[in-house]
Amino acid sequence: MSFTVLNNDKLSHARSGLLKLPRIELQTPLFMPVCTSGTPKGLTMSTLDNIGYKMVVCNAYHLFLKPGSRFIKNNFKDLHNFSNWKNAILTDSGGFQIWSLDSLVKIQDDGALIKSHIDGKLNKITPEISIQIQEELNSDIMMIFDDCPKPNSEYSIILDSINRTSKWAKRSKNAKKSSNLLFGIVQGGIHKELRRLSAEQMVEINFDGYAIGGLGLGEGPQLTYEITEYLNDMLPQDKPRYSMGIGRPEDIIESISYGIDIFDCVVPTRNARNGTLFTFDGKINIKNTKYSNNNNPIDINCSCGACLNYSLGYLRHLYVNNEISAIQLMTEHNLNFYHEFIENIKISINNCNFTDYKNNFLERYLQK
Amino acid sequence: MSFTVLNNDKLSHARSGLLKLPRIELQTPLFMPVCTSGTPKGLTMSTLDNIGYKMVVCNAYHLFLKPGSRFIKNNFKDLHNFSNWKNAILTDSGGFQIWSLDSLVKIQDDGALIKSHIDGKLNKITPEISIQIQEELNSDIMMIFDDCPKPNSEYSIILDSINRTSKWAKRSKNAKKSSNLLFGIVQGGIHKELRRLSAEQMVEINFDGYAIGGLGLGEGPQLTYEITEYLNDMLPQDKPRYSMGIGRPEDIIESISYGIDIFDCVVPTRNARNGTLFTFDGKINIKNTKYSNNNNPIDINCSCGACLNYSLGYLRHLYVNNEISAIQLMTEHNLNFYHEFIENIKISINNCNFTDYKNNFLERYLQK
Repeated sequence: MSFTVLNNDKLSHARSGLLKLPRIELQTPLFMPVCTSGTPKGLTMSTLDNIGYKMVVCNAYHLFLKPGSRFIKNNFKDLHNFSNWKNAILTDSGGFQIWSLDSLVKIQDDGALIKSHIDGKLNKITPEISIQIQEELNSDIMMIFDDCPKPNSEYSIILDSINRTSKWAKRSKNAKKSSNLLFGIVQGGIHKELRRLSAEQMVEINFDGYAIGGLGLGEGPQLTYEITEYLNDMLPQDKPRYSMGIGRPEDIIESISYGIDIFDCVVPTRNARNGTLFTFDGKINIKNTKYSNNNNPIDINCSCGACLNYSLGYLRHLYVNNEISAIQLMTEHNLNFYHEFIENIKISINNCNFTDYKNNFLERYLQK
Repeated sequence: MSFTVLNNDKLSHARSGLLKLPRIELQTPLFMPVCTSGTPKGLTMSTLDNIGYKMVVCNAYHLFLKPGSRFIKNNFKDLHNFSNWKNAILTDSGGFQIWSLDSLVKIQDDGALIKSHIDGKLNKITPEISIQIQEELNSDIMMIFDDCPKPNSEYSIILDSINRTSKWAKRSKNAKKSSNLLFGIVQGGIHKELRRLSAEQMVEINFDGYAIGGLGLGEGPQLTYEITEYLNDMLPQDKPRYSMGIGRPEDIIESISYGIDIFDCVVPTRNARNGTLFTFDGKINIKNTKYSNNNNPIDINCSCGACLNYSLGYLRHLYVNNEISAIQLMTEHNLNFYHEFIENIKISINNCNFTDYKNNFLERYLQK
């Protein structure tokens, strides 16, 4: 594995890079569609490949519960083979579930006791078990098992939590048996000094890459950007950085300007299911009656299956009739938009005009 | 328009044919995927085209309600343009809704008063209005507006109903302004003498093709086959015949042996959503636990997107997780199976070995 920064933007911390994994070479910046259970919501893995995606994020905890990571390993070799995804996979460790399944979780010093949302069964997930699950899935990039506290928690609770995360990070690293990559996760809520402490802890342990966790959970975009910018100096320049769960197009481009390389977010897929389409001229709410007689594609310059074949009026008709084909086509469009958006950003960094691109993009995108 | 029988089977009434429409030439036998509102359930129109389908059936009444047939004509020219379907479209007249929306319908001599299942609004559909709707949609083949009675209705009610259908058939024909084709519909429930009467009425009016309506509604396959066989002699050999809503693979191949050319049915799409997959070795219920560790595709000889890329185990995982991608992939497979099945039948008729093919197919398909 190696990570090389190819270009550094002059006016910001944006950079393009090349992350060489045994399976595949990944160009950064890079966006990963969310494939929690080994598929994107509303679309197939082969469509993701056709769009051009090179890495997806899957959820180790969900796959551990159903159909079982050991089950996948024993019967299908690994998650790549199971989902027929030849490109890279990053797995979330299950740490985020501590946050999102809050009421079902009891944190203990050696791990987390999580009540299955499927059958109510109690599972103890420790750093060692999380790494074992991720190695059974054989993801190309694994995440440490972290404690992701609520961002509005008291200072002392977050301090406890990052110290716990630091211990769990060491144990995650020690538990790793494969040559798959392992990324640390910087927590610390909205407190800069705790973010700094957590970053120092992670860098000291030394990982293949560093993620920023616990952002985009209600702190608001200004704080997201501030913390991201603050951490830029604290994370090694020669390792990839991943901002977990970020985000909206405007959040991604801002985060890239603060030195982030890798993203994942449910926004393009979830918004498609909610009727929101992304274009470079801003968002479209397909439910709006004004689109019912619209003969144009979502975006006349887009080359996705929805835009090449169908009008906004037809897509709206499918959507208001609750047709599955609406979800398919709109999800494909949104993921195509995200892919093209990141490609444009990468090209602008390589052409040394990222800041111009960013300003022009935001002006046009946010105008609506 | 012309219809030419290309080959007549020696041992049955099966035949292959060529139906020349202004838009496209259609080979028969032919299966039409059901696209009630201008899309198949669970799949896009462009996937139907990729599979090789040349005609779909859409529902005039549903499209009249939403988004409106006049609306489609005024804003999108016609249903082909609206749904980006370059091949043929057959529209059902709305007559079947008299059966399926039973409690919302009041039959009158000049038409049917139908309460919208969407907004409760009363719409009077007459033969003239039905043809107008179908001409606004510009379907290649229109159906007369018929009265489709419940098959277990009393003899006198069905007699009334076919006489009404006969009157409506004449009015449908008189109302037609376009050069689009118009098919008559033979009703008559399970009473052969009423079927004969209805067929005579339809043939006397003289249509571009003849449909058998009101079958597959609970009378059981033996009666379906018996009535289909009985009508073979009564319908002109030089016009295409369409068995509405039939059916399962075994029903289709039997009906072809009794001289039917055209089919439509929700079975491949609805069964996919219910977890049933079709193969030449019989049906597969994806919910069965035994498939969870199955590394093989649904059918090793199938060239659909599901079989080329994914295992039964993975598809089962998607299905039990309620992933939309399961519906997409399973629907694609089932429609691919139906297309290949009909192609095989056509080839066997052209090669003069239909009955052998039929016997071999049924033996293998029904073994499970």
